[in-house]
Amino acid sequence: MSLDAVLSQIDDDLPHALERLLDLLRIKSISTDPAFKGDCDSAADWLVADLATLGIDAEKRPTPGHPMVVGHVGPENGKPHLLFYGHYDVQPVDPLNLWDCDPFDPQIEDTKAGRVIRGRGSSDDKGQLMTFIEALRAWKAVKGDWPCRITFFFEGEEESGSPSLVPFMKDNAEELKSDIALICDTGLFESRTPAIVTMLRGLLGEELTITAPDKDLHSGMYGGIAMNPIRVLTRIIASLHDDQGRVTVPGFYDDVPDLPDDLEAQWQGLSFDHAKFLGDVGLSHPAGEQDRTPLEMIWSRPTCDVNGIWGGYEGDGFKTVLPSKAHAKISFRLVGNQNAPAIRESFRAMVEGMLPPDCTAEWKGHGASGASAVETSDPMFEAARKALSEEWGIPAAYVGCGGSIPIGGHFQTILGTEPMLVGFGKDDDQIHSPNEKYDVESFHKGIRSWARILDAVT
Amino acid sequence: MSLDAVLSQIDDDLPHALERLLDLLRIKSISTDPAFKGDCDSAADWLVADLATLGIDAEKRPTPGHPMVVGHVGPENGKPHLLFYGHYDVQPVDPLNLWDCDPFDPQIEDTKAGRVIRGRGSSDDKGQLMTFIEALRAWKAVKGDWPCRITFFFEGEEESGSPSLVPFMKDNAEELKSDIALICDTGLFESRTPAIVTMLRGLLGEELTITAPDKDLHSGMYGGIAMNPIRVLTRIIASLHDDQGRVTVPGFYDDVPDLPDDLEAQWQGLSFDHAKFLGDVGLSHPAGEQDRTPLEMIWSRPTCDVNGIWGGYEGDGFKTVLPSKAHAKISFRLVGNQNAPAIRESFRAMVEGMLPPDCTAEWKGHGASGASAVETSDPMFEAARKALSEEWGIPAAYVGCGGSIPIGGHFQTILGTEPMLVGFGKDDDQIHSPNEKYDVESFHKGIRSWARILDAVT
Repeated sequence: MSLDAVLSQIDDDLPHALERLLDLLRIKSISTDPAFKGDCDSAADWLVADLATLGIDAEKRPTPGHPMVVGHVGPENGKPHLLFYGHYDVQPVDPLNLWDCDPFDPQIEDTKAGRVIRGRGSSDDKGQLMTFIEALRAWKAVKGDWPCRITFFFEGEEESGSPSLVPFMKDNAEELKSDIALICDTGLFESRTPAIVTMLRGLLGEELTITAPDKDLHSGMYGGIAMNPIRVLTRIIASLHDDQGRVTVPGFYDDVPDLPDDLEAQWQGLSFDHAKFLGDVGLSHPAGEQDRTPLEMIWSRPTCDVNGIWGGYEGDGFKTVLPSKAHAKISFRLVGNQNAPAIRESFRAMVEGMLPPDCTAEWKGHGASGASAVETSDPMFEAARKALSEEWGIPAAYVGCGGSIPIGGHFQTILGTEPMLVGFGKDDDQIHSPNEKYDVESFHKGIRSWARILDAVT
Repeated sequence: MSLDAVLSQIDDDLPHALERLLDLLRIKSISTDPAFKGDCDSAADWLVADLATLGIDAEKRPTPGHPMVVGHVGPENGKPHLLFYGHYDVQPVDPLNLWDCDPFDPQIEDTKAGRVIRGRGSSDDKGQLMTFIEALRAWKAVKGDWPCRITFFFEGEEESGSPSLVPFMKDNAEELKSDIALICDTGLFESRTPAIVTMLRGLLGEELTITAPDKDLHSGMYGGIAMNPIRVLTRIIASLHDDQGRVTVPGFYDDVPDLPDDLEAQWQGLSFDHAKFLGDVGLSHPAGEQDRTPLEMIWSRPTCDVNGIWGGYEGDGFKTVLPSKAHAKISFRLVGNQNAPAIRESFRAMVEGMLPPDCTAEWKGHGASGASAVETSDPMFEAARKALSEEWGIPAAYVGCGGSIPIGGHFQTILGTEPMLVGFGKDDDQIHSPNEKYDVESFHKGIRSWARILDAVT
């Protein structure tokens, strides 16, 4: 039976594939919030049950956090052994009032840009994860067997720093070894160009609490004489960038490589429309290092962002409180050989050196992973690139990615396996934001893309 | 009948006076939060009913916000006509988890520093307000009549910027005229010295929202290229003070007078123990203008404080959001002839001049009142000072006050009446904070103080 028959089966089965995805999206598997622990467990159960309908014997495997799902199928037939990774957990949904619908009552919507699947996790990453499963479902239905040995590996802590991932991969290294790790958690380039990501930024998260007075005070009584921790915290945060947009943490750029000439040339060929990229979110000026191109800012340069800040009174009206504490969640995107623990240490030392008398800093570390680059010499990469180009009618590109998907680096360092990062998200999917969506086209052509890749590499 | 008999009656009736206060404290009259509108109304009703038990015909008078309570009693007998002002509304109670008890289930507690009344509003201002009513109750019980003409004027919006106060005073100016306005909303000096406040700082409140991207973004996708509004807001706030602790808003110090020599001499005589004042709240370094004394910092110098800041993700765990908006509530304490509207204008212009491309500022103004100084030449001031000195056994002082009690200035400008600010709060009352308390001694000797003042000025 031909690949065409598999692609036709995918087309015919799309309505059912969408039903299955909506079913998975209804599970509130927010991994960062302990209140949703049971939901994360349910999402893992759902995946085990869905793989069982394909005759795949997968298991929910416990960790100190949320469970992994691991399964194996197909013959050792001399073809490459593929591993497929995705994550079933999702981001929190606040601010809830900015959603136009219930984030966990997903809907298929017609929009002027086409049909979309609306709901938390539709794009990141449940919709993407299901593209691979649906491709295999069609393959099995048409061909009656499997193309090669395939291992499934699904995680439930990707959105909360993956605390159990490395120990689990180390403890189960033999079982998780494969010839290549397929990862579906990235996007198309500029919404239409299929892409294989070969550069990923790392991520370092820090939560900082500044304490000044030991209790909340009345600013009428103490204002002017008592140090306000918001004043201290804002001064620290304001100092993290210089006026050229560079991060000021000492040693921050020590292990940041310049972009290789060949990649620079390829990226220039992509003619990235940064005006549209920024215009889509109401901006016009690239805010990063002023001597770098926009693509460098998001793919190959490190950054610092404050992801949350709070202290004092936030309610309606006014309260003249002089608070005891002020807080911020700060993250760094890392590139090249930047060393996450060393940057954490330098950052903390810098902050503590800025504290005025009477003030203390408390720290909570959230994840620390370096950047990674993929070695693409295995012919499977070129085969996949050709398959993607055929499906989308546009030559597929090797690209960078501003996000941090540490799993790629873990496959390299723990298992010695190169990761192939292929995904179908679009820039306007609003992942991590209210009204997250995944285009039905991304889902449909994503499934077809995997069928083509399976055919091409086996 | 002598003053001594009135004082004895106060001592004997203290348990009942405490019961009445606890009853009033149970009413959740948080004026800044619309959810408690009905409770504010109930507190006004409670006061009308309590005054009725004294035979005083008071009324709840509507305003566009929470009601006023106004009542009159006593003969026009050639003695001074006194007006008494207090406020029945209270501050919000968050963060609720820092209270050791329910803020609206007030208790009398034995502490190592003596008996205290614990609960929201015990000191600010329900406990203080009731000192005057209880003094009159004892006076009436012993003497059977009133010392002079007395007007009661209670407000329910003092903790939320008093939006209805000025219009109400203007509309009812004839009815509210008196020879002096007694106000009980201040404190003892250093917890033991009775004090009459003659300098009050003004207050200007601003709520600022910075918008950068028009939606929340994923910092993996946009970090480095998209401006983060928290970065903008923190840079603005960090620039509000120079490294000598001076406020940098242009023109801010234009109408700030130097302290007159005589007052400076009197304040030096007070030998303010700033080490203890700061040590009580876990601090040791005065954080204001470094060329000013601690007493100047809190009484006679203007300040700027951030009372709240928020933006992005505050929950458990980590979320790599790059938020669309960041917010702050900022207030200025004003002195001398500083002009609140002019400072508002200068502050907003300064902030808008600092905005990078693509960023916008939205404003919400909260109250704007200048500072006030009291003219103490009327002999009632010296009479009251002597009465207070007798009750407390320590010479009473004319002092400044860091807080903003605009009512004093309103009596001067609208009614031509000097305010006499006498109160019995202590520095450790934790007003506006969790675990607010009022010492039973403050309440008891406060009632006795008013009885002595009534006797002295009539």
